Amino acid sequence: MDIKKYLQSQRRLVEQALEEFMLRAEGDFKDHVAAMRYSLFVGGKRVRPILCLAAGRTICGDDSLDDQLLPVACALECIHTYSLIHDDLPAMDDDALRRGKPTNHMVFGEAQAILAGDGLLTFAFELLSRPSAGGLDPEARIQVIHTIARAAGPLGMVGGQALDIAFEGRNIEFDDLKTIHRSKTGALITASVQAGALVAGATEDQLQALGSYGNNIGLAFQIVDDLLNVLSTTEQLGKAAGSDAERGKATYPAFFGVEKTRQLAREAVERALGALDGMGEPAEPLRALARYIVERNR
Amino acid sequence: MDIKKYLQSQRRLVEQALEEFMLRAEGDFKDHVAAMRYSLFVGGKRVRPILCLAAGRTICGDDSLDDQLLPVACALECIHTYSLIHDDLPAMDDDALRRGKPTNHMVFGEAQAILAGDGLLTFAFELLSRPSAGGLDPEARIQVIHTIARAAGPLGMVGGQALDIAFEGRNIEFDDLKTIHRSKTGALITASVQAGALVAGATEDQLQALGSYGNNIGLAFQIVDDLLNVLSTTEQLGKAAGSDAERGKATYPAFFGVEKTRQLAREAVERALGALDGMGEPAEPLRALARYIVERNR
Repeated sequence: MDIKKYLQSQRRLVEQALEEFMLRAEGDFKDHVAAMRYSLFVGGKRVRPILCLAAGRTICGDDSLDDQLLPVACALECIHTYSLIHDDLPAMDDDALRRGKPTNHMVFGEAQAILAGDGLLTFAFELLSRPSAGGLDPEARIQVIHTIARAAGPLGMVGGQALDIAFEGRNIEFDDLKTIHRSKTGALITASVQAGALVAGATEDQLQALGSYGNNIGLAFQIVDDLLNVLSTTEQLGKAAGSDAERGKATYPAFFGVEKTRQLAREAVERALGALDGMGEPAEPLRALARYIVERNR
Repeated sequence: MDIKKYLQSQRRLVEQALEEFMLRAEGDFKDHVAAMRYSLFVGGKRVRPILCLAAGRTICGDDSLDDQLLPVACALECIHTYSLIHDDLPAMDDDALRRGKPTNHMVFGEAQAILAGDGLLTFAFELLSRPSAGGLDPEARIQVIHTIARAAGPLGMVGGQALDIAFEGRNIEFDDLKTIHRSKTGALITASVQAGALVAGATEDQLQALGSYGNNIGLAFQIVDDLLNVLSTTEQLGKAAGSDAERGKATYPAFFGVEKTRQLAREAVERALGALDGMGEPAEPLRALARYIVERNR
């Protein structure tokens, strides 16, 4: 399959859905909603929603469940976007650029940026719990909410960011770096895959296999992110390149050098592909996504 | 009934449940969890969880559903606590004291305080979506999650805080003040009452009546908060008194003076009591809570 074309069409699908589900910037809260929309629509690869859709279709075999998958996919993107807004804050990574554009607090100020993040996080759960139009089984819906909340929460994404900040400029063990990657990035990526699978009624075995796929592409994704931060220019990345080293952040290249790091990313992708064994043709997009992750350049 | 004794016993019940449900400060994320726990256990009136419990018992007639109500009650307190941590941040109200103790960012620093808030908000939804031990109907559980997410979200609590910050130091109309109060404080209080009622299987009529009760005590609560900020000392409040006037915040006393403001609070409580007409003896705690709100002094 042509992964570039596939990603383009899926991004369009996700962005149409975000446009449909997201609040309008009107009425009493228009400025607040405008701040949320700014970061949600400023661009982005939409990796998590695309993974959610692809995993759901892998399980059900076609796109007949897209109407049930799309709100979940959009909720994942809201959560991812909130995490970027908060990560970029002056008190955290203090980044002025994201996706080639001014970060949320540069445009709306720090207070409104914090609240835009809070709003997006809360709105994600509003979206996940909307009265079902498509008829998703309520029990499955609760499992989806729980899976996402755990992955985004104190022992997942938020906890990982807290560790990352706490460890900045300190000498850390490789085990700590793995913990940060697994929680800060890996958990929500894995949850994206699993949430899609849950919507499509995956069996316990399928959930486990897709969980392993998710863990491994999450790892590969973060390793490549580390690499790109070292090797790219700011223009290519759309955010400050070289910023990890500048902040004394532990990264894969800092531990292993560039070549070995590339090798580790490839190995993680191989494990991800192995987890999809036996899922046949419907898993082809998930395979292409895994390969794309190590080949991307931003 | 003796409201002081009742509140004391209910607070104890809620705090035991928080202790049971909340993550331990151990393992990789112990510092992050410690920051969350600091604000959650630093004290507080526990108004929202107590309202949730009281509303649920009003509908079912006894305390037989407490096991299902308590996780919901605790999730509400987590959301309330997160909102206080973020409101106190330097970029927002910049408060050094809360409940007579240093605010979260004074103890853990700004970055970790933002993340402690994010962690509590996300954890609330993890708690609300836990695999049901007590057997709450999944459809009702989703309604509970949706009610709380909407109330805490961009058109509710977060939106209200965004408006409040945006309007600071500006001359605003009374209608704007009402919008701020209704969203920033009222929405989550109303949702607390309704969530309890939903757990107990309330009818549409009962939900409406309790919604009206919630709206009115939420209003009374905020009016009294405004009054206390004007009339109390910092020692009595456990947070900076007189800070609203200092920041040029619009308040009820600023619009109406102290006497008329007291009168408006009493009227709101009367409307709240009216909404409980016909609910008989089981609604007695809700009535006592409504009266207590206008009589409290911190």
